[in-house]
Amino acid sequence: MLVKDTELIVSSMFTAVILWMDDSELTQGKNFLVKIGTKLISAAVMDIKYRIDIHTGEHLAATRLYKNEIAVCDIAAAEEIVYDTFQKHKGAGSFILIDRVTNMTSACGVVEHSLRRSENIVWQKLDITREIRAGRMGQKPLTLWFTGLSGSGKSALANELEKRLSVAGRYTMLLDGDNIRMGLNKNLGFEPEDRIENIRRIAEVARLMNDAGLIVLTAFISPFAGDRQNARNIVGETNFVEIYVSTPLEECERRDAKGLYQKAREGRIPNFTGISSPYEAPKNADIVIDTSRQSLEESADLVLQALEKYM
Amino acid sequence: MLVKDTELIVSSMFTAVILWMDDSELTQGKNFLVKIGTKLISAAVMDIKYRIDIHTGEHLAATRLYKNEIAVCDIAAAEEIVYDTFQKHKGAGSFILIDRVTNMTSACGVVEHSLRRSENIVWQKLDITREIRAGRMGQKPLTLWFTGLSGSGKSALANELEKRLSVAGRYTMLLDGDNIRMGLNKNLGFEPEDRIENIRRIAEVARLMNDAGLIVLTAFISPFAGDRQNARNIVGETNFVEIYVSTPLEECERRDAKGLYQKAREGRIPNFTGISSPYEAPKNADIVIDTSRQSLEESADLVLQALEKYM
Repeated sequence: MLVKDTELIVSSMFTAVILWMDDSELTQGKNFLVKIGTKLISAAVMDIKYRIDIHTGEHLAATRLYKNEIAVCDIAAAEEIVYDTFQKHKGAGSFILIDRVTNMTSACGVVEHSLRRSENIVWQKLDITREIRAGRMGQKPLTLWFTGLSGSGKSALANELEKRLSVAGRYTMLLDGDNIRMGLNKNLGFEPEDRIENIRRIAEVARLMNDAGLIVLTAFISPFAGDRQNARNIVGETNFVEIYVSTPLEECERRDAKGLYQKAREGRIPNFTGISSPYEAPKNADIVIDTSRQSLEESADLVLQALEKYM
Repeated sequence: MLVKDTELIVSSMFTAVILWMDDSELTQGKNFLVKIGTKLISAAVMDIKYRIDIHTGEHLAATRLYKNEIAVCDIAAAEEIVYDTFQKHKGAGSFILIDRVTNMTSACGVVEHSLRRSENIVWQKLDITREIRAGRMGQKPLTLWFTGLSGSGKSALANELEKRLSVAGRYTMLLDGDNIRMGLNKNLGFEPEDRIENIRRIAEVARLMNDAGLIVLTAFISPFAGDRQNARNIVGETNFVEIYVSTPLEECERRDAKGLYQKAREGRIPNFTGISSPYEAPKNADIVIDTSRQSLEESADLVLQALEKYM
């Protein structure tokens, strides 16, 4: 069947009936590639309007869709596309949604009607939320909070973990002394109140990065149980994983890569954790790892294994 | 040809010769799906060892690869895979690298030799850098710094922009009063030094988020030119885009959605920008937009168009 060009619709938003075919659920705001006509472009399901009961035809409220469910959704494409309603033209009115990561067809659908700009309530209604950002990255945002003495291997382990997670396709960010003390916290000293504020700001940034969908790794001594509890409260219990790098003081002091322990023993660094200032070891850390018992790689293996249940 | 199982290699890292076929360049750390034998898993090019001159066979130093170049690389997979060297077994020793976003075949390659754990220098050498994180997301990290009077439409415009960018497949984060004043900056008041520190911390967080690969949108009045220049210095010139929402004071006051202008006029809010405290309008903003002249959607269209050259 030939269709006159003038009958086609040019718009970047439309309402559609979709059949959701993916094992994972559909959440609002999720981003896809949409294949419609000959075009393949970015699009997002901005709003699930209602689900249709396939037995009764009833309209049911829904904010997410599970496999084999049918629903009416508003879809926004990244640019204007030419299409038609399915009723008028089967070819130009049907589409598929392709998962950007797995490249599998997640849904097929037919266009019900276009959403003109003037009736564009979809965009107004839906903000880009934490859930949408995490959904885009296909991961659960987590803050992996490494704590342990200077020289315990926190940074090396966090670094190694970040590489492993990155190779596995995760989106990550590492916060450590290098990028925090010289930047965000450069106006803080080492007095008790500064140390509390130091940890508080790091936790706030970790939370913001979780909001952005990222898996955050932090590598700071964070010696005080109260500060770590505060960090857990800020980040939120379900996203916070405390990893205690429990390498014994003797081993840390033996390594003394930066010569800090020696200086501390000579009294040249006041308030040095483990020497002249206490380290309050976590009593209920989510993961405990002693890096003196195996190689960095083996330690990373163990932590990665223990992390699985949080991912 | 049949191969005895005992001859195959089980490892997660190997050195390979690859032919790069993608229009975009290959950078170290880039993440792919590798198809080797019957397996399809996550992997990253951890190190480009050298490029091979196809005419002379010479080994050339290279940190990135362009289309049709041949190079020797170290590749790390997310889990152990069974394979063989190409020399011994053509089928089990060849692979392709598939782009995670476009799902196109970016490279084909043959395994030279396995990298045993003990000789694993690859991981140690390469940290996950800003470039790698941005490469993973397939975008240039940017900080879109919106500035303008209260009620000028900064937040609405930043919100709208974030939706558009998200639908277009970008990874974004919006920093605004809601998530900053209640969190990171809750210990700051509205005195001049607090205002400076407020903007400084936001810029530092934006920089960290750029390090994570994200496109960051910030929506704060940021009335002082000096603070904005400081933010630009922190974020870095090449990643900073200042967007001046130039809606005139009369229009902002007319809207007065939160009733703030009225309170300020009554003297109930001291130091209110535009009434009892100055707004230093940007003289050289990268993008200027007056939201009183067109709808939110049209404004967003204009900004998005102007943004193209920065992306």
